[in-house]
Amino acid sequence: MALKTGRGAAAPPFIVMDVITAANVRQAALPPGAPHVIRMEVGQPGTGAPAGAVAAVQAALAAGAPMGYTETFGRRSLRERIARHYAAWYGLALPMDRVAVTVGASGAFPLAFLAAFDPGDRVAMAAPFYPPYVNILTALGIEPVIIEAGADTRFQPTVAMLERLAPRPDGLIVASPCNPAGTMLHPQELADIAAWCHRNGVRLISDEIYHGLNYDSPLATAAALSPSAIVVNSFSKYFSMTGWRIGWLVLPDDLIRPVECLAQNLFISPPHIAQIAAEAAFDCTDELQANVARYRRSRDLLLAALPGAGFPRLSPAEGAFYLYADVSDRSNDAHDFCARMLAEAGVAASPGVDFDRMRGHHFVRFSYCGPEADMAEAAARLAHWR
Amino acid sequence: MALKTGRGAAAPPFIVMDVITAANVRQAALPPGAPHVIRMEVGQPGTGAPAGAVAAVQAALAAGAPMGYTETFGRRSLRERIARHYAAWYGLALPMDRVAVTVGASGAFPLAFLAAFDPGDRVAMAAPFYPPYVNILTALGIEPVIIEAGADTRFQPTVAMLERLAPRPDGLIVASPCNPAGTMLHPQELADIAAWCHRNGVRLISDEIYHGLNYDSPLATAAALSPSAIVVNSFSKYFSMTGWRIGWLVLPDDLIRPVECLAQNLFISPPHIAQIAAEAAFDCTDELQANVARYRRSRDLLLAALPGAGFPRLSPAEGAFYLYADVSDRSNDAHDFCARMLAEAGVAASPGVDFDRMRGHHFVRFSYCGPEADMAEAAARLAHWR
Repeated sequence: MALKTGRGAAAPPFIVMDVITAANVRQAALPPGAPHVIRMEVGQPGTGAPAGAVAAVQAALAAGAPMGYTETFGRRSLRERIARHYAAWYGLALPMDRVAVTVGASGAFPLAFLAAFDPGDRVAMAAPFYPPYVNILTALGIEPVIIEAGADTRFQPTVAMLERLAPRPDGLIVASPCNPAGTMLHPQELADIAAWCHRNGVRLISDEIYHGLNYDSPLATAAALSPSAIVVNSFSKYFSMTGWRIGWLVLPDDLIRPVECLAQNLFISPPHIAQIAAEAAFDCTDELQANVARYRRSRDLLLAALPGAGFPRLSPAEGAFYLYADVSDRSNDAHDFCARMLAEAGVAASPGVDFDRMRGHHFVRFSYCGPEADMAEAAARLAHWR
Repeated sequence: MALKTGRGAAAPPFIVMDVITAANVRQAALPPGAPHVIRMEVGQPGTGAPAGAVAAVQAALAAGAPMGYTETFGRRSLRERIARHYAAWYGLALPMDRVAVTVGASGAFPLAFLAAFDPGDRVAMAAPFYPPYVNILTALGIEPVIIEAGADTRFQPTVAMLERLAPRPDGLIVASPCNPAGTMLHPQELADIAAWCHRNGVRLISDEIYHGLNYDSPLATAAALSPSAIVVNSFSKYFSMTGWRIGWLVLPDDLIRPVECLAQNLFISPPHIAQIAAEAAFDCTDELQANVARYRRSRDLLLAALPGAGFPRLSPAEGAFYLYADVSDRSNDAHDFCARMLAEAGVAASPGVDFDRMRGHHFVRFSYCGPEADMAEAAARLAHWR
């Protein structure tokens, strides 16, 4: 008898993952000595974990640390270190009880969504957006409500847009700096949105995983702006530790124990060894700031070079390591455009359709976190390919 | 305005985690020189990862391996190694395409449940059971259907019990060896259940995380017995790698791509460093078999000593590292019984209420994966406490 599958079985892929595979295939098929594929499709720092984090792990392994389960919310020393980070970066006195270490930001989202929402609830976000927001919500039976944001609001939502939503959503996801546009909500904008959400009973989830990667505007954390907001953060981007799968939540008081119970059941604990690395990463400021300086140079180079290489309409790129390019004058099919760019120019980038199902076929996302020399080479290749 | 919380916010704790905390508190409060608390509440091997696994990680770190995201289903070399493990242990030719590496077995369950079931679906299991089965299903809006199994069927379900379920459930979870009873479905019993499920359109999820820890009966894997079953496994128990958070799924053909899409969105990839450790762990047979021999000795000791120490009604303990003791002649409140045992005898164990909400107040789970000397000491203390 044929077996049924669940609604979750209809989850769309996170297309970037498939683009990465296509770039891998292209690279593998190149003859020896051919120019390599320039990887601008992947949101992963080209650097590994900072040296001090790796050294801490090596020391723990050499000492025979058993690496068993930790408490569900993580090692207390790491939670305390994260709390101190909020004092240092934001001037916020954050009790460590509100910090939950998670299996990456990926592990944080289901905990936040399950604790805050029920199936059938409506959670809003601006498009373009990080695709798993929608795909996880949908798998959990929660309805995404998409607000089309454009270059005029730096692809970010505004209180005016929220006011126009009828009925009011149950939640709102914001991301600053955001993926794919690399734009930010400036502090007063985030404060206004946070206040509106709290006043209107809308649970705010603030994705702050690109904090630390900001080039023009100062950072603000929703943890300082709203007593009801949930903050998601990660060691993957600024701390350059993608594959270690470690992140954190800052929880509002009413969700601490519910999220702890959910996490006991869904995760038991985050990976022990990654917690050791993460705690040490906070002391690697020089190396991490050197990464940021490199991203800034690559950003400046691309913002200067890409307009002359056929990409004149770029997002302002205030943060993260993404440029979102409007290519509507060159293609109505970003997927095909990216495939040709990979095949003909040897530059891999992600089609906007992953981030905006309505308008994304007119956009391409370039990631500039790869080697600095590759960014200049990419601009040259694209100018030639034009 | 007060914000709503989701149904997930009502998830009960995984009580064992709270019992661990109580034992930690008790140990910390002991005066210097006092006999230590014997930890029989925790399902975690006292050993760390095998030496060869740790050495492989040290070598990778020393070589500067970047530890970025892997493919969503894990490194191909690890998936191939897992597939070969099925040939070696079960004589099964398993294509590596069917193997998905996961963030522990914990990360495997939501993927399996979301891919196979919808909210409102009914998924059966025998009680006593691993508490997160019920708590994860409930958080996802899936209804657990509890089959009360007793000592007469070794706390395992039978086809006759399944036949009596009306209406037919959409899924069935089995575990062999099981937590908390330490009993097994013998190969023909598992084959009969797998055939019944496939014939009746009931998705079978076979939790095989205690495979390798079996003392009397041979192992059978549902992957060899049903084309529609989902197998969950882990490196936490036999491979002694709890805190590394690494496990795997063996998927039926119809769920491979759906689970891949779900995992892209929910996890991106399993932890890279744990995948390196896991692959090397397959070559650490001598060390792992020495662990199994130690568990067997502890089991034999406790099966011989506990009846005379006031625990005459014990589960047969065919596998895993648990004994499930019927204490109904001594208490109607296992939670209180365990609290007194901890305070008066210095032995921590888990009340059955976590595993069986109806009858668990008459049961206690002892875990015997701790130091061998502690097991003898526990038996002596309990005989004295009687």
